[in-house]
Amino acid sequence: MLAENSYGKSGIRLVKLLRRPDRHEIVDLTVAVRLAGDFEAAHVSGDNSRVLPTDTMKNAVYALAADHSLTPFETFGIDLVAHFLAGEGEPTSVTVDLEEHPWEPLTVRGRPHPHAFRRSGGEVRIAVVRGTRESTSVEAGLDGLVVLKSAASAFSGFRRDRLTTLPETRDRIFATSVAAHWRYAETDIDFATLRGEIRQALLETFAGHASESVQHTLNAMGEAVLERHPEVDEIRISLPNKHHLPVDLSPFGLENRNEIFVATEEPYGLIEATLRRK
Amino acid sequence: MLAENSYGKSGIRLVKLLRRPDRHEIVDLTVAVRLAGDFEAAHVSGDNSRVLPTDTMKNAVYALAADHSLTPFETFGIDLVAHFLAGEGEPTSVTVDLEEHPWEPLTVRGRPHPHAFRRSGGEVRIAVVRGTRESTSVEAGLDGLVVLKSAASAFSGFRRDRLTTLPETRDRIFATSVAAHWRYAETDIDFATLRGEIRQALLETFAGHASESVQHTLNAMGEAVLERHPEVDEIRISLPNKHHLPVDLSPFGLENRNEIFVATEEPYGLIEATLRRK
Amino acid sequence: MLAENSYGKSGIRLVKLLRRPDRHEIVDLTVAVRLAGDFEAAHVSGDNSRVLPTDTMKNAVYALAADHSLTPFETFGIDLVAHFLAGEGEPTSVTVDLEEHPWEPLTVRGRPHPHAFRRSGGEVRIAVVRGTRESTSVEAGLDGLVVLKSAASAFSGFRRDRLTTLPETRDRIFATSVAAHWRYAETDIDFATLRGEIRQALLETFAGHASESVQHTLNAMGEAVLERHPEVDEIRISLPNKHHLPVDLSPFGLENRNEIFVATEEPYGLIEATLRRK
Amino acid sequence: MLAENSYGKSGIRLVKLLRRPDRHEIVDLTVAVRLAGDFEAAHVSGDNSRVLPTDTMKNAVYALAADHSLTPFETFGIDLVAHFLAGEGEPTSVTVDLEEHPWEPLTVRGRPHPHAFRRSGGEVRIAVVRGTRESTSVEAGLDGLVVLKSAASAFSGFRRDRLTTLPETRDRIFATSVAAHWRYAETDIDFATLRGEIRQALLETFAGHASESVQHTLNAMGEAVLERHPEVDEIRISLPNKHHLPVDLSPFGLENRNEIFVATEEPYGLIEATLRRK
Repeated sequence: MLAENSYGKSGIRLVKLLRRPDRHEIVDLTVAVRLAGDFEAAHVSGDNSRVLPTDTMKNAVYALAADHSLTPFETFGIDLVAHFLAGEGEPTSVTVDLEEHPWEPLTVRGRPHPHAFRRSGGEVRIAVVRGTRESTSVEAGLDGLVVLKSAASAFSGFRRDRLTTLPETRDRIFATSVAAHWRYAETDIDFATLRGEIRQALLETFAGHASESVQHTLNAMGEAVLERHPEVDEIRISLPNKHHLPVDLSPFGLENRNEIFVATEEPYGLIEATLRRK
Repeated sequence: MLAENSYGKSGIRLVKLLRRPDRHEIVDLTVAVRLAGDFEAAHVSGDNSRVLPTDTMKNAVYALAADHSLTPFETFGIDLVAHFLAGEGEPTSVTVDLEEHPWEPLTVRGRPHPHAFRRSGGEVRIAVVRGTRESTSVEAGLDGLVVLKSAASAFSGFRRDRLTTLPETRDRIFATSVAAHWRYAETDIDFATLRGEIRQALLETFAGHASESVQHTLNAMGEAVLERHPEVDEIRISLPNKHHLPVDLSPFGLENRNEIFVATEEPYGLIEATLRRK
Repeated sequence: MLAENSYGKSGIRLVKLLRRPDRHEIVDLTVAVRLAGDFEAAHVSGDNSRVLPTDTMKNAVYALAADHSLTPFETFGIDLVAHFLAGEGEPTSVTVDLEEHPWEPLTVRGRPHPHAFRRSGGEVRIAVVRGTRESTSVEAGLDGLVVLKSAASAFSGFRRDRLTTLPETRDRIFATSVAAHWRYAETDIDFATLRGEIRQALLETFAGHASESVQHTLNAMGEAVLERHPEVDEIRISLPNKHHLPVDLSPFGLENRNEIFVATEEPYGLIEATLRRK
Repeated sequence: MLAENSYGKSGIRLVKLLRRPDRHEIVDLTVAVRLAGDFEAAHVSGDNSRVLPTDTMKNAVYALAADHSLTPFETFGIDLVAHFLAGEGEPTSVTVDLEEHPWEPLTVRGRPHPHAFRRSGGEVRIAVVRGTRESTSVEAGLDGLVVLKSAASAFSGFRRDRLTTLPETRDRIFATSVAAHWRYAETDIDFATLRGEIRQALLETFAGHASESVQHTLNAMGEAVLERHPEVDEIRISLPNKHHLPVDLSPFGLENRNEIFVATEEPYGLIEATLRRK
């Protein structure tokens, strides 16, 4: 009766300090490893002879970190997948999730400090590497990129039914936390440069778009990435609508000229789509 | 280039107070509604004429709550799905996620109080109802059920490689936070009774199983549900291994007779599987 | 220029398994140790010779746990304080914060299981032990006890100014997360029994009180404890008002007979007071 | 028996959009208001006639935001305190806590965009304004400023007892999340400029200090602020030690040249001190 199954180690916290001659660099990752394959004996009869402990997966992450490059971290993911697929009797598929927490040098007397850093906010960089004995695919992404535009955002002309009370607007705050994952068509590319350019394409499109809805802007963001970057064959974007509601000041004899808002957490709209190259 | 897409409202917090003659009852839900269908015009050209605002979805949840039963909450999910599918030009598929936060009466002078309640912990009840014009399916579940067994749990005989350092053990603490989702083969059943019995089957199996690994116990839990409940045709279980590591007391001249543990959050094993009726 | 200072270790996770003949028992604590004293040399000139590492504090918690009783955990706090005050050149004051995460046996076939447990929700038990060479005081408490009453709760007759829009009500939901800390006048008492009785006094008063406001019920809860328990000479209670707002259903042609509410997180009222025995 | 008491509204989320001719500016605040005074009647007899509802406090925040400046937000706090103290029969003391969540313009084609923004990470700016009929004091601060130095940090020569196992080190990673609160001696100052300079003093000292311990660096940070800024008469700093532990790679036949670390959350050191001008 056992259908799909997988097991692995999550939340492996790895910090590598690169001691370059003129300055230090920090690579700060949270890694998760997941194996799938023929583990039926372990499930059904408690026979662990084919089960590599998740503790060993953790050890492998630290051991490989010592003698492999972690920049860009996508290639470290590729190396980890290859490691878990090597040898005999191994899993049929391996997935490694990597989350990078960026640090930037502190600025002291106008210059980047060589060994003091600041965590640059809540945004994380993501890579997901999946491999089988036949092939390996790399997905990159970002999460927690909180952005807001205070002009060029409307929502009107929508469908109404007897339960609709939302007023139409041609000028609203559009705030969201961007989560985007894109799949590369190949694995021998300059991951770091591409990541920077794709992120910039997402941000510039968000900023410049004359938005008729979250869907409309999401689609434009995805199209911009696919148009500019042939290396990407698919992008998945998730945009929670972090509603900023105008406060009704009329009970206090005041007018709200679209200036005073309450930022709400719940409920929130959630708009998701995948764009794929034809 | 637009492939999959969906949109909806999440985090709709709904509390309904049932004023029964002898006592009150609280139903406390977090609801999410998600629609999919032909919304390409909204994405590509900013034409919102087929887009029902997510704000209207929220209104619908509150309006339907007023004149529909919320017990069991699975049927409220079915009613919500039907509502969003009714009428013309509607979405082709609707998903409603419901999370119930249970409250139990306070005990005062040995008896349940008629209108004072306590939130019964972190465990939540889950239902996911998916519908199209052709069919509706109901998945039920639970999440955040934290359990621990301090005997009848081993992990030995596992695969070793040069990076394996984990000692074998025939007596370890096994702690986890159970997340389980099961799919019903039908929708005209007694959801509340089944839920209670399935939860009890999961817990009794966890407690009584002679565990050789997390996988082994997970499989036994899933099998117990499928064997006892023909209404269930599939169950998906996720068991994070909340490691409790014995503390090495030897530097202090003390022996740890498997009594003193450090409970860790990171890293954690994660074991997942789906069991399906043949 | 250095005024107050303290240092210590927080987040020490300790689980002790008591292997009784007929059943196991779990004590699950998060401990924090804090020392204060003459540590000026460390601050000003970097001289660490009087600084016991926080790592050693962690070791002490595990080492003492091995040969001291943890039930009730208040006495373990007293033992820890005594440990850090013992010897020469030591800190002038020590504070130990303990948080207990309760586990209860699973019920299997109508009986408590001997070695399988369930975490009983979000409520934690608290103890704070403070000691100097002269004296030791014990404060006990609880946090995260989420309760709700759906009758016997009003808020009316309040002060109005030109910015007041809140309607008066004689029937509202009163939901809160109780945090209470009480100070014992002595340390040679039955902590576990007292804790249970004080918790019950808080809950029964919350349930039974004809509440005119959060303040009113908070005061009644504190008074109940001080009246019934001469061992307690002070109690501090904090009650966030977890607002449940009636949903306006009139736009949908429906009446809300005080049955449909939205539970909100932000903003929230926060009512706090200390009651002290004269 | 009622001793101290206070009540108020927390978590008031306020976003003000400043529509300047050439660009927009966002002020994003979370505000809490707390009143203390003679509210004994409300507590003891349920008489609410002197109780201004916390809902009115929320209204006041939004109403005042409409016609008061929010830049710098310290002055908005002063205005709010004055508002709640004005009139008759009012509270004897008012505290307003403000947390500012900073947004920065997106960079598009090398230039700051006029109306698109990015949330600049987890660091928040803080102000606490306290007022009575006699006087008003302003405390400013910051929280969640996560920094790390990978050189010039040691911890050695510390006190040892029989439970000490920590090795000495002359080269360790020092990572922390800075929380600092400083009290101004006056209220008619340039809050925004001072805030920037004080933050920079904290960061530059952290970066440049030859650290013998967290205490040592904390003290240097506080001294730097007091020395450079006579407007500040007291500063309170809290530095959790976010331990980065070198991973033992010797079981894998590898050497760790102080390059591979595990970042841990629990347990953590916590070092706190107040520095006060004599």
